[in-house]
Amino acid sequence: MPDSRSVEQLQISLQRLPGVGPKSAQRMAFHLLERDREGAYSIADAIKAALSKVNHCQRCNNFSENTLCSICASRRRDSAILCIAETPADVEAIEQASAYKGMYFVLMGHLSPLDGIGPEQLGITRMLDLIRTETIDEVILATNLTLEGEATADYIADLLHEQSVSVTRLARGVPVGGELEYMDAGTLNQAFSDRRKI
Amino acid sequence: MPDSRSVEQLQISLQRLPGVGPKSAQRMAFHLLERDREGAYSIADAIKAALSKVNHCQRCNNFSENTLCSICASRRRDSAILCIAETPADVEAIEQASAYKGMYFVLMGHLSPLDGIGPEQLGITRMLDLIRTETIDEVILATNLTLEGEATADYIADLLHEQSVSVTRLARGVPVGGELEYMDAGTLNQAFSDRRKI
Repeated sequence: MPDSRSVEQLQISLQRLPGVGPKSAQRMAFHLLERDREGAYSIADAIKAALSKVNHCQRCNNFSENTLCSICASRRRDSAILCIAETPADVEAIEQASAYKGMYFVLMGHLSPLDGIGPEQLGITRMLDLIRTETIDEVILATNLTLEGEATADYIADLLHEQSVSVTRLARGVPVGGELEYMDAGTLNQAFSDRRKI
Repeated sequence: MPDSRSVEQLQISLQRLPGVGPKSAQRMAFHLLERDREGAYSIADAIKAALSKVNHCQRCNNFSENTLCSICASRRRDSAILCIAETPADVEAIEQASAYKGMYFVLMGHLSPLDGIGPEQLGITRMLDLIRTETIDEVILATNLTLEGEATADYIADLLHEQSVSVTRLARGVPVGGELEYMDAGTLNQAFSDRRKI
């Protein structure tokens, strides 16, 4: 921008959003200043409000504005099963599928040594304390089926090896609606080796 | 998000950014709250600062923190040529190419009746006043070569028809480094019909 330090500063700041490069930041800044000033105010206010209000649930580590999130505070959930998920978005997806009625622990990421995210950053000690102190029969490892998610699941499974708790992993295979023609070799291999009797 | 109104509100607000849907907004909110709180503060502050400081140059309509932007205030520019551009980003691209040393008028968009953007919203009356009151020999229509940009250029060319000013349009053809194999039919047609003697 030839003449405005604050537009330049805005463009630089917007690039801190994931997936936003210089060109998108330029487009966003133009849009906010020229087409949607009201929206710009609402974004700035929403960021500040979220920063000041949102914290982590003391039990499951998910985002929450209270000490305990609504799932941890609920008496309708099965507290004998604990599902380990990577992010709040994953918990949301599982909840929306109504696939699960137990409790959660949210790692807020996956192991990624290159980004400086190790077991401490993921609160793995807190998770182990939880498993030790509460009466939990089964731990479901619901990290992503990506390389990093698998590594994180393997790491946690190793840690839980000596505990008297059954550790399970989400089923791997062809997704519902999937066409074999388009599946990668890894998925097909898994679907064959984990085939089930009908 | 199961338990946080402010995270939800943040996700809704972020969707007012161009090109950001529910999934990207979710990813951005998670990133800001979990990985980069400092960045989140800097975005909120940069938005507020830009909203309060950035206005339009009274002459060329580009973003500026002063009454006149640095290009309009400069004495080194050729004030006999006026380049009509769509956005501040276009002016920046032209300036970076050092292709042009005249003045600008920035429309801040293109004609788009469906979005309620007509000649008034683009400040076309102000642009005509400028052309009438200043001594301008040539108006270069540098709107995009898209359908909307072409329509906007045609509309302005029609308005300037009766003025004693020469009106030009950017050259159309194969971009530098372009391979004919990958050019669309429209570009190839244009490149053939506008071919130049060497």
